[in-house]
Amino acid sequence: MTGPSSLQELISALRCLPGVGPRAAQRMAYHLLQHDKPGAVRLTQALGRALQAVRRCPMCNSFCEEDLCALCGSAKRDPSVLCVVETPADLLMMEQTHAYDGLYFVLMGRLSPLDGIGPREIGLDFLARRIATGSVREVILATNFTNEGEATAHYIGEMLRERSVRLSRIARGVPVGGELEFVDTGTLAQALLERRPV
Amino acid sequence: MTGPSSLQELISALRCLPGVGPRAAQRMAYHLLQHDKPGAVRLTQALGRALQAVRRCPMCNSFCEEDLCALCGSAKRDPSVLCVVETPADLLMMEQTHAYDGLYFVLMGRLSPLDGIGPREIGLDFLARRIATGSVREVILATNFTNEGEATAHYIGEMLRERSVRLSRIARGVPVGGELEFVDTGTLAQALLERRPV
Repeated sequence: MTGPSSLQELISALRCLPGVGPRAAQRMAYHLLQHDKPGAVRLTQALGRALQAVRRCPMCNSFCEEDLCALCGSAKRDPSVLCVVETPADLLMMEQTHAYDGLYFVLMGRLSPLDGIGPREIGLDFLARRIATGSVREVILATNFTNEGEATAHYIGEMLRERSVRLSRIARGVPVGGELEFVDTGTLAQALLERRPV
Repeated sequence: MTGPSSLQELISALRCLPGVGPRAAQRMAYHLLQHDKPGAVRLTQALGRALQAVRRCPMCNSFCEEDLCALCGSAKRDPSVLCVVETPADLLMMEQTHAYDGLYFVLMGRLSPLDGIGPREIGLDFLARRIATGSVREVILATNFTNEGEATAHYIGEMLRERSVRLSRIARGVPVGGELEFVDTGTLAQALLERRPV
């Protein structure tokens, strides 16, 4: 006796969401069916539509609905600078700074050999071809400062070394508004090593 | 620039899930579209089917797909004992004990006046009518030992006081396998108060 089968199947299907275990899936299913049927209908439709409409931008590798994403198709962006980020979420963060007007390349992941994620899985062959067209003058590596993000940046750096593009990595250091007392020692050591003349 | 609209709508729709904020919703949407399209298809179908198939059992108030849920329709259960629980999850926990062979009434919530959840919202009128039929001999109150669960149990107790049914509350005390040293003092005090002759 474990309840209706369509409810069981819903609970089981909800577990495909990242970070959702058996208890959370059960709570979600009960919540939707008991308290938020309109939300469940909306979610069903949104999933169906997104599955149909969302594809990859052939330029930046991020999600888009048209032949080209709005950013890559924009005439206002500088096509000679390319910022490499791990995820669409990182791209959004970069956009929110309003400090960048070039284009992006979204890896949709990071190198992680143990998980079977190699250069091809994060579209590096695709990135190399894009650089080979010669339209890009500078590549900014904006992967995370985690081990995997650093390894990915290093790999891309090596890959593009022979190309005639300028390569840079976003700066590491003490966060804006950060107090030295509360910054971890690794970050502080880096901030010291990478000090800039004033 | 916030990405394709169907992706935005999916992220927004995912927030109807309990405990899912903007970041988690974004991560879920990216995960589904990038790594688990089969999972997303399965979830879409499961939601659609559950929305169509799942309704409330007219006997116990829990979720079911037929005219009567499997438990209420079972000839093996004792119809003279009724266990009142807050949620279908609690019912499943009770079933997993294999220590109960009566029927259930599922409140699908608990009294919570501040949230607008009164006796009618948790089906107490419905429970009163069921008791009035005279088929139930004993009611076991198995709501949680939270403030709201206790208040709900108290309210149901008062409501059924005049009826000729035996009323009981599941026992509070030190958990099985629990060590006194690590039990909170409130629980220990209750275990002392409600000590049983051996």
